[in-house]
Amino acid sequence: MTAEIIAVGTELLLGDILNTNAQFLARELAALGISVYYQSVVGDNAGRLEALVRQARERSDLLVFTGGLGPTDDDLTKQTVAKAYGDTLRFDPEELEKIRAFFERWGRTMPPSNEKQAYVPVNGRKIENHNGTAPGMIFEDTKCKGKYAVLLPGPPKEMQPMFCDTVRPWLAKMSDGVLFSRTLRVTGVGESHLEPKISDLLEAANPTSALYAKMGEVVIRVTAKAATLEKAQEMCAQRAQELKERLGDVVYTDVFDSLEETVVGTLKRTKKTVATAESCTGGLLSQRLTAVAGASEVFSFGTCTYSNEMKQKILGVPAQMLADVGAVSPQVAAAMARGVRACSGAEIGVGITGIAGPGGGTPEKPVGLVYVSVCDARATYVQKLLMTNRTRDSVRTWASQHALEMVRRLALGLEQPGCDCFENGQAVEMSDHEGLRNV
Amino acid sequence: MTAEIIAVGTELLLGDILNTNAQFLARELAALGISVYYQSVVGDNAGRLEALVRQARERSDLLVFTGGLGPTDDDLTKQTVAKAYGDTLRFDPEELEKIRAFFERWGRTMPPSNEKQAYVPVNGRKIENHNGTAPGMIFEDTKCKGKYAVLLPGPPKEMQPMFCDTVRPWLAKMSDGVLFSRTLRVTGVGESHLEPKISDLLEAANPTSALYAKMGEVVIRVTAKAATLEKAQEMCAQRAQELKERLGDVVYTDVFDSLEETVVGTLKRTKKTVATAESCTGGLLSQRLTAVAGASEVFSFGTCTYSNEMKQKILGVPAQMLADVGAVSPQVAAAMARGVRACSGAEIGVGITGIAGPGGGTPEKPVGLVYVSVCDARATYVQKLLMTNRTRDSVRTWASQHALEMVRRLALGLEQPGCDCFENGQAVEMSDHEGLRNV
Repeated sequence: MTAEIIAVGTELLLGDILNTNAQFLARELAALGISVYYQSVVGDNAGRLEALVRQARERSDLLVFTGGLGPTDDDLTKQTVAKAYGDTLRFDPEELEKIRAFFERWGRTMPPSNEKQAYVPVNGRKIENHNGTAPGMIFEDTKCKGKYAVLLPGPPKEMQPMFCDTVRPWLAKMSDGVLFSRTLRVTGVGESHLEPKISDLLEAANPTSALYAKMGEVVIRVTAKAATLEKAQEMCAQRAQELKERLGDVVYTDVFDSLEETVVGTLKRTKKTVATAESCTGGLLSQRLTAVAGASEVFSFGTCTYSNEMKQKILGVPAQMLADVGAVSPQVAAAMARGVRACSGAEIGVGITGIAGPGGGTPEKPVGLVYVSVCDARATYVQKLLMTNRTRDSVRTWASQHALEMVRRLALGLEQPGCDCFENGQAVEMSDHEGLRNV
Repeated sequence: MTAEIIAVGTELLLGDILNTNAQFLARELAALGISVYYQSVVGDNAGRLEALVRQARERSDLLVFTGGLGPTDDDLTKQTVAKAYGDTLRFDPEELEKIRAFFERWGRTMPPSNEKQAYVPVNGRKIENHNGTAPGMIFEDTKCKGKYAVLLPGPPKEMQPMFCDTVRPWLAKMSDGVLFSRTLRVTGVGESHLEPKISDLLEAANPTSALYAKMGEVVIRVTAKAATLEKAQEMCAQRAQELKERLGDVVYTDVFDSLEETVVGTLKRTKKTVATAESCTGGLLSQRLTAVAGASEVFSFGTCTYSNEMKQKILGVPAQMLADVGAVSPQVAAAMARGVRACSGAEIGVGITGIAGPGGGTPEKPVGLVYVSVCDARATYVQKLLMTNRTRDSVRTWASQHALEMVRRLALGLEQPGCDCFENGQAVEMSDHEGLRNV
């Protein structure tokens, strides 16, 4: 089966928004074994939309549309696609009631313009939308077997659940078999480090393993196809196990959706708490931890001590240390970690200090230099990062990612690659190495 | 002039990467007054690429390609486009030397496969690439006047400078007239509140004003076209002024790119400093402030006091107050703001306390209830927010947005709509109103 992804909306043509829907759908369709040969964006223009729909219908078995279903959109997409697929639309009073109820949940009355969203296919089917007012729809070509068109709303928080809950199972059933996916997440090493260890598995057909690089991590999505869900799950579990054995503990989870969720889960499981002291990351680390529901079980205190004065006052970093080695130093990172741990009573303390840029760098301490420290009752670890040619945002994000990974490893008693280790009370002197460069 | 954006690359079709180039080019072309009616993605397949090039050349005056110029790409794009535009490629020894030198700068030898990148148009022109090995190119259709194709590399850090330095000036010269845009940003009210006040301006042809809703704010982009840049800038300034007069101080900037940049800029200008005390937002507010380069001039301290104990210890929130009214209360929000101001010596203190969800709510204090407080030497303001049916992330983002806006208004001595005001030292008792619902 071949597919084509079409985004409808002038705001995309004008560059007002980024087309994240295309990437989401492309990955989902690839995991389903459906080849995508074209992606297009077209505006709210009847002539151009119709021309594209007709051409796409000719060349692809499945068209997936996002956008063009809003109350101000004049339901151009619905009408055009219905016509091209030999179907018509009917008014659905049940759908109208749902839309009305959606507005009432927000304490508002439904504007009349939303009524046009209550039209659904006569031959095809509608797709429930629990996060917005526009239902989606699936058209099956009445004149040509095996041709389909799926219409979904533009906003990702509406489109994604609708795809996952309705479209994906429907497509999986059509390709006789059930699909199941499991996602492994890796941090601390790059794609080029992983590929050689698993190249045969990346070539394998079922389960497939697809590698995606993201900011701060690499994601491996394992997808298995089988006659039953249980069988597909079992195949995924086996392949995931093999990947974990080959790659080791750089795989930080195959259950959670992010490093911070994994860290909060790990701290809960090991009954440990953490407190954070940040400077250049400005609150990003505590923000990431607290983004996870239930973080209050393991986190009670974070601080952003942006000035030397506040580092002394709140964390007890000695004035003499700041004068001798400066705020951006392994000593101060360790003192911040130890200080926030003492101040909060948490088991694990984290300290981050560095130069995020674009200003503030010197030849000795350039932009992108960051020291990250974690400590517990037994020991203090310090890692030197040198992240040159990065944006301010990128330096901060990477620093918080390294900090999270060091907390995870500390809680589990794993090795701390690239870190210097000191006993508590011991003065911090880094061994003479480069530190991690541009990971 | 009409244009079409075409991204070449199978990694886009597979969803491995996000098509940020399309958004960048769409915005640039729109600003140049060039209408983009189509955007497409096509893979590394000769047949499909050629079919798309021919179709696109028919329907659009200008084609802008990204990708397909790498050493492993078999120069498919270059050959196909050259042929369609009646041009050929020639080997450029000077370009080969540049590529060789590029590798040597990195201490490496040029692999033979990079030689194919040294081919440039015979009739057209090449575009210098200072950040990579592949030159770009501009083809001018030899058979049909007024048709052009621009080829640029895929990596944004190569493509963007090449577009800005070479392509944009070339295009600006070609179109009769110059465009200029200015963006106004609004927070605290929604689109439906703004539209009636400016509906005639939203309909106007030159300058145009386009309204876009984003998380926590509304953006109005004013674009003017005139014979000279000065004239276009003047038209924009006049329209922006008119919009600001009609909408009032909900327009927080027409210069900066975000509320946090605006707040940091405002604090610098008014020579004021701020310190933040957060609970449910977990560090998001301090993270937003410190994301702005130069924030250290106006920000020295932020804290996330996630537990009652730390609210007492660090901010001096009285234990009796916490026992009487609970952490999520206007009294505690005010005490946090006053406490962090006293602790840090900043002019302005901010306190945020609430229930981000999904858990933690009760009938009296439901998920989405957040109190935001700001204070200075003169007064303390408290705002009650009730953001039901929101995700955890959305509650936190909106709360930080309201806090930033309250800081901005306090620094400028503006009104604080929806807030109760107390003199410092005065006990906080909110008047009996709903608070801001679901903004």
